Amino acid sequence: MSMLTLKYYLEVPASSLDNNKGDIDRISAGLKDVTGTRSIEWPLSTIETASKVVRSSGGKITVTVWPDGDRLNVITTEAGDTTGLNFGVAIDIGTTVVAVELVDLTSGKTIAAEGDVSGQVRYGDDLLTRLHFAGQGGVEELRSALIDTINGLIARVCTDSGVTSTRISAVSAAGNTSMTHTFLGIDPSPIRFEPYTPVINHVPRLSAKELGLDVLPNATVYVFPSVGGYFGGDLISGAVASGISQAEEISLLLDIGTNVEVILGNKDWLLALAGSAGPALEGGVAECARRAAPGAIERVAIDRATLEPSYKSIGESPAYGLCGSGLIDVIAQLYLSGLIDSTGRFILEKKTDRWRTINGRTAYLIAKGDEKNGIPPTYITEKDIQNLLRTKAAMVAALTILLNSVGLQLDGIRRIYTAGSFGINLSVDSATAIGLYPRLPAERFTQLGNGSLLGARKTLLDSSMTAEAERIADKITYLELNVHPEFMEIFRSASYI
Amino acid sequence: MSMLTLKYYLEVPASSLDNNKGDIDRISAGLKDVTGTRSIEWPLSTIETASKVVRSSGGKITVTVWPDGDRLNVITTEAGDTTGLNFGVAIDIGTTVVAVELVDLTSGKTIAAEGDVSGQVRYGDDLLTRLHFAGQGGVEELRSALIDTINGLIARVCTDSGVTSTRISAVSAAGNTSMTHTFLGIDPSPIRFEPYTPVINHVPRLSAKELGLDVLPNATVYVFPSVGGYFGGDLISGAVASGISQAEEISLLLDIGTNVEVILGNKDWLLALAGSAGPALEGGVAECARRAAPGAIERVAIDRATLEPSYKSIGESPAYGLCGSGLIDVIAQLYLSGLIDSTGRFILEKKTDRWRTINGRTAYLIAKGDEKNGIPPTYITEKDIQNLLRTKAAMVAALTILLNSVGLQLDGIRRIYTAGSFGINLSVDSATAIGLYPRLPAERFTQLGNGSLLGARKTLLDSSMTAEAERIADKITYLELNVHPEFMEIFRSASYI
Repeated sequence: MSMLTLKYYLEVPASSLDNNKGDIDRISAGLKDVTGTRSIEWPLSTIETASKVVRSSGGKITVTVWPDGDRLNVITTEAGDTTGLNFGVAIDIGTTVVAVELVDLTSGKTIAAEGDVSGQVRYGDDLLTRLHFAGQGGVEELRSALIDTINGLIARVCTDSGVTSTRISAVSAAGNTSMTHTFLGIDPSPIRFEPYTPVINHVPRLSAKELGLDVLPNATVYVFPSVGGYFGGDLISGAVASGISQAEEISLLLDIGTNVEVILGNKDWLLALAGSAGPALEGGVAECARRAAPGAIERVAIDRATLEPSYKSIGESPAYGLCGSGLIDVIAQLYLSGLIDSTGRFILEKKTDRWRTINGRTAYLIAKGDEKNGIPPTYITEKDIQNLLRTKAAMVAALTILLNSVGLQLDGIRRIYTAGSFGINLSVDSATAIGLYPRLPAERFTQLGNGSLLGARKTLLDSSMTAEAERIADKITYLELNVHPEFMEIFRSASYI
Repeated sequence: MSMLTLKYYLEVPASSLDNNKGDIDRISAGLKDVTGTRSIEWPLSTIETASKVVRSSGGKITVTVWPDGDRLNVITTEAGDTTGLNFGVAIDIGTTVVAVELVDLTSGKTIAAEGDVSGQVRYGDDLLTRLHFAGQGGVEELRSALIDTINGLIARVCTDSGVTSTRISAVSAAGNTSMTHTFLGIDPSPIRFEPYTPVINHVPRLSAKELGLDVLPNATVYVFPSVGGYFGGDLISGAVASGISQAEEISLLLDIGTNVEVILGNKDWLLALAGSAGPALEGGVAECARRAAPGAIERVAIDRATLEPSYKSIGESPAYGLCGSGLIDVIAQLYLSGLIDSTGRFILEKKTDRWRTINGRTAYLIAKGDEKNGIPPTYITEKDIQNLLRTKAAMVAALTILLNSVGLQLDGIRRIYTAGSFGINLSVDSATAIGLYPRLPAERFTQLGNGSLLGARKTLLDSSMTAEAERIADKITYLELNVHPEFMEIFRSASYI
């Protein structure tokens, strides 16, 4: 297992009349001796620094490289032995949130992590608005906004950890297909139109300076490949994180965010479905949705007689917001109390003082909050319920189509990995109860969390995982969910509680 | 034999719901099918253009690439079949003069050639002045002046031939070690000091845009390697042009310009000597030296009684200037007439009205010229004679040392290739007569002309010659002429007529 970038300490002999080979050529000879690599590639911008360093340090230098097959590509040269100081950055380029981890490539440990709302959000909350903006010549603005967000996060992880950004030699980034395109400064707008063809799936290895990232200028940047316009590098990265493409047993990877994405398979085959769960899911899971953090409501009960709710929040903090299991509980309790019908619509004839109008929409109020102390109310709208039902229906449809395609029974799935912004918040029990996750024993489930970020981190620590990601993208059989003939039929029949 | 860059016409299938792979990925698949190459490398700047071209042309495109081992590096993508339009530029980066040839990579023919005084000359006529200037922070000015000269010449060859510069996909450049460094924007000044170590011998493959060359931005630029501070890529290029490194028989390459450079060997071994022939040679061969063109004086006789010269010029044009054989004739005739001694000094006691003072120096006037019609006088100074004698002495010393090193008799040299600014002007008979060339049968001599430019052109038409140049630079045994213990002794004893 070899890191994405490596550092070698060399003692390069000084030049003499007997050996007055060029500075760079003497360093290359030393690297070849140590590594057995035949070819050393020097970007033009690395040459003069290396020459000055080798002359001023008495030949005691550390060279940072990224290996590529039978070549070593030089990133930078430093005086003395700095082999213990090598860092990488993993990036999850989300549509809404960008997450960055700083990884110590010597210890393998994550030493800082930060996240922030993407600067692209000001050009549109949802992907389609941004794709339209990109098609109107806005790519450079989108690119620049994203890079600014990433550079801000890199600066923060550097401050958090005390690492200088010029020790960061490796970057690994995963995002959906549109995000990947704008990260590269490539117009993703053709993805909007059938057959949803991206400009590029397999991205070449790039240098940080080409992309404008504030790390070592020649740091290597790996970008995860996409499979289709709506099946991106974030899911490939999740697949790498889960290891399903290297396992004997058949596993399922579920990624639920603004899109529903599912991969089924093992080391021999991989079948995938992806597609938007409908416009309803764009814009987030639910208005009052929160991560499962202290204060988030995780359990809700509604009294059948009084129609009054009671709840339990995480920890002792003042309660507001619904984490995933809280959201699912509310919907189940509303149905059982006769406050919604099986299509998720409110039955307003049922009298309760919990009906409110919030932001112009009818809502059922769960917790009043505490305006004085800045604690907002927690409530649920029909739209929130529809979102969850549509997501559930898309999941059921996707899984049914996949299982039918390969003639597999549900129980043939031995492991289930869950990822994505929905998956993070959700308890397996709640999600299984409402039918969002397949009804399989809880012990078969593994929550990856942010699978995209996790896979990116994995490539930093094991460069063979980049080849694995490319292999997954090549071998996977991908069905566009929205154009699949069975989809709408199954979707409709599953859009009920 | 494969050109340095290649063009492939492809018909790329349109994307569909069954195959909605990215545009770039579908082009890569087509290139892999046609070429059998496994890896296609796309510089970031080539991607969006290729996507637009493949979409707008109905998939009928031509891709220009440069092969590198098991990879194809994309240079550009054009609509339609443009495989017949592929051009390369060979450049000889001389200290004084830069020469450029435009080569049609389809027919293999040179279709335009231009030369000009290097823009670097304004920072010093001679190399040492420029090295000093570079060491004072002048590298960027030197680089920029040189690139301006080259771009001017590229514009001229394009105008001459009607080729647009965006059809130029390949550049091959050869120059001495200092010129190569400034071409790359690297400070060559460390070369001044023992052990005369360059920053770099083997130059990485570069793109035109990195160097600022006005051709296709991703055109590949090959730069010949150097062996030492005073043994540069121009001579390696001459060796490639001559083919001595691939021949069974032992050959000699002589390159006489401001330096004397000699390579002896065959396919199994190569031994080289190089060094300045002394400060006298800096600044050119002789004040009135000219190329062997119409009007140049090629034969001179001096009447032993009257001490008056007579001469024969090339063609019918008004006579001025001495070509190489004219220069040698003058020196031989001055000596036989008792006007110079065996060390080349004027014997001014000999009375003749041909002694003149020109530019503050004593000179022997050969032709008066015709001021009214702009024809300058032709004369020779002691310095001109010293230059030739020193060059001759350096040549004799170099050859003696080389032959002694390998225990070879003079007759063991089966072929002699002559190159360099001196070699171009010189007839083999004259040069052999005065001892500048070794006394070997005339039929063994081949005049390469500008060997540096010729070798550069050869790599454009046969990419395997780049590997051959790197091999030559690696295998050659190089002796620094000026520090060789025998040199001064032989040099002194050969500094006579």
